[in-house]
Amino acid sequence: MSFDEKMNPYMVSSMHSTTTSLSSERLLLGPGPCNISDRVSASLSRPLLGHLDPLFLDAMDTCKERLRDAFQTKNEVTFPISGTGSAGMEFLLANFLEPGDRFLVGVNGVFGTRLMNLAKKMGAQVESVEADWGSPIDVSQLCEKIRSFKPKIVAVVNGETSTGVYQRGMHTIGTSAHDVDALFLADCVTSLTGMPMEIDTWGVDLAFSGTQKCLGCPPGLSPITLSDRAIQRFKERSQSVPSFYFDLEEILKYVGPQEGTPRSYHHTAPISMIFALNEALQEVLEEGLETRCQRHAAAASLLIEKLEPFGFTPLVAAEHRLNPLTTFQLPDEFDEQAARRHLLYSHQIEVGAGLGPLAGKVWRIGLMAGNANSQSVDHLVDGLVDYFEKN
Amino acid sequence: MSFDEKMNPYMVSSMHSTTTSLSSERLLLGPGPCNISDRVSASLSRPLLGHLDPLFLDAMDTCKERLRDAFQTKNEVTFPISGTGSAGMEFLLANFLEPGDRFLVGVNGVFGTRLMNLAKKMGAQVESVEADWGSPIDVSQLCEKIRSFKPKIVAVVNGETSTGVYQRGMHTIGTSAHDVDALFLADCVTSLTGMPMEIDTWGVDLAFSGTQKCLGCPPGLSPITLSDRAIQRFKERSQSVPSFYFDLEEILKYVGPQEGTPRSYHHTAPISMIFALNEALQEVLEEGLETRCQRHAAAASLLIEKLEPFGFTPLVAAEHRLNPLTTFQLPDEFDEQAARRHLLYSHQIEVGAGLGPLAGKVWRIGLMAGNANSQSVDHLVDGLVDYFEKN
Repeated sequence: MSFDEKMNPYMVSSMHSTTTSLSSERLLLGPGPCNISDRVSASLSRPLLGHLDPLFLDAMDTCKERLRDAFQTKNEVTFPISGTGSAGMEFLLANFLEPGDRFLVGVNGVFGTRLMNLAKKMGAQVESVEADWGSPIDVSQLCEKIRSFKPKIVAVVNGETSTGVYQRGMHTIGTSAHDVDALFLADCVTSLTGMPMEIDTWGVDLAFSGTQKCLGCPPGLSPITLSDRAIQRFKERSQSVPSFYFDLEEILKYVGPQEGTPRSYHHTAPISMIFALNEALQEVLEEGLETRCQRHAAAASLLIEKLEPFGFTPLVAAEHRLNPLTTFQLPDEFDEQAARRHLLYSHQIEVGAGLGPLAGKVWRIGLMAGNANSQSVDHLVDGLVDYFEKN
Repeated sequence: MSFDEKMNPYMVSSMHSTTTSLSSERLLLGPGPCNISDRVSASLSRPLLGHLDPLFLDAMDTCKERLRDAFQTKNEVTFPISGTGSAGMEFLLANFLEPGDRFLVGVNGVFGTRLMNLAKKMGAQVESVEADWGSPIDVSQLCEKIRSFKPKIVAVVNGETSTGVYQRGMHTIGTSAHDVDALFLADCVTSLTGMPMEIDTWGVDLAFSGTQKCLGCPPGLSPITLSDRAIQRFKERSQSVPSFYFDLEEILKYVGPQEGTPRSYHHTAPISMIFALNEALQEVLEEGLETRCQRHAAAASLLIEKLEPFGFTPLVAAEHRLNPLTTFQLPDEFDEQAARRHLLYSHQIEVGAGLGPLAGKVWRIGLMAGNANSQSVDHLVDGLVDYFEKN
């Protein structure tokens, strides 16, 4: 270590973080998973229960109730799908889209593209409204397309994890969708409990999320919620759902359409993950949704302020930023791969690379759940200072 | 407590088990999940890693290697699907069955029925060879049907979790399947590492399992293995797979067709569950497959011997029993629901009820993974003695 390095106050902090508090664990500042709390970690190791044990069914009911609060919905059918976030997406399309149905999707990143491609694979007639990666979908343009195309489902990505864009105008889109009797679908993977979300007020009929983002839980479950209007539409399907694992009717026999309804076996729920999700949701609700969103916003602001001197500039305009995940354009002549390696191996800090057309051009820095605080920003800044000093 | 109860040596043991060693946890002697070891529990709470972290990708490679050993296969494409056991079944049919394909399945319980129904939902031409619930599929009859029907896939349930039947004659079925150029599919959910299994020797091309049975891991993952012949057949598909979550081609870009191959993002793997599975597999391999199977067999024998005096008789003939899960016909005038409630609430012991036509007629008692020992049998006997004393 050089004399300069030893004298740099950032370095002291950096060495400290690397060798003590983070010695055995990564600080996960990528697009998720993020770190989980000790409470969530302990609940993950709770002694197992059988999937039909009354105590476990109580835990499932608790989970449903807490998810309703998190989504800000009264939807009876709200529960976690037994798979990761993409499983929630697939569950929604498998149940609500039939071959030949019209599907309209806003595409401004990986996850809008993924929705579009899956709808095509399932034999839907698909149209899209596109925007640059890093920009939101133009709401007027989308609503105009809704009126002319009259889709069965209108889908948008509320929190685009590939670009860090938060889609606004959700209520307007919902109203336009309902005007043509369409269902409104939202990808809420990185927005749930990290950004304002009003599923019922917005008129969202079909929403899915993931556990490893702002909920602060390991990956493995995909919370979903379905409006009564959606359930009604499900009953009008002309064909059976071409899936067993994702068949809503079969799953409901197990997770129950409402509390107190008799259950029967469909699949063996991932018990430990449900325990962890329940604890994570409890932490969310103890903090309060508004406070939690404000904390995510404050952390994102601090991050942008602290990274600006290094030459990192936000990709997304201020009013459209997804606070839990900020995408930065990189400094000039910056070896982003070398810098990510340095952060990971010398500082135990993970940041996210760009995806698709943004690969090599941006970093995605997540400050989610328990990581949405100034300490995370400080650790990252320490690591960057160290990198720039050595390179 | 009555004087008689105090004097009954079983009662002492029973009270002990309820109030101390099992005070905060159930003894899970149903069809799975079973209890997990302290090692597996601790690994579940290991600090998270990102899903693209080189350390996590190493863990995934380790998992694949250990699964190959457990399945007794050299199949390169062997990995855990991010969903519970039924997700593995759906993954296999989604990738290897196209509408109009011929599908032949042995049906002698819930899980054969499930395979049959899913193949129908997917638009296959389905035929079945049936057997009574509690009996194996007649191998000659199945092979004859293979020759006449010439299916694309022949499916059997190697370990029927609904009845406790272990299907023998796997090598003969595999040979017949290959003679007509069919793929051989096996449901190995409750047989993997609890019963002899030789995927390569048997000629099984497509196999799936679950983590919450003989592997002694929580539910949440479905290990699968695919032969080279299956991979070749996959490449000859006429249509794209109508799924994103289960699309083999997409998943392989992430989990990797072989070690050292570059990875790209498909979904966020359930990190904590992979850690737990790796530890569970390590325990399996330390014990050795043969020893482990013998332990399951010895526990099942002891269980049958100890329950016989109560009037419980095995449903399945000795040579066809699935040792990890024994199905018992119940004593005369036995209130099976009351007895299960008593075991659960007074002794913290879960046993499994019958499914489908066997509901109310049998119990399914699982002695799986760490529960396959005489202590489990003793606890259950204690609980039953107590029940019969009080009723």
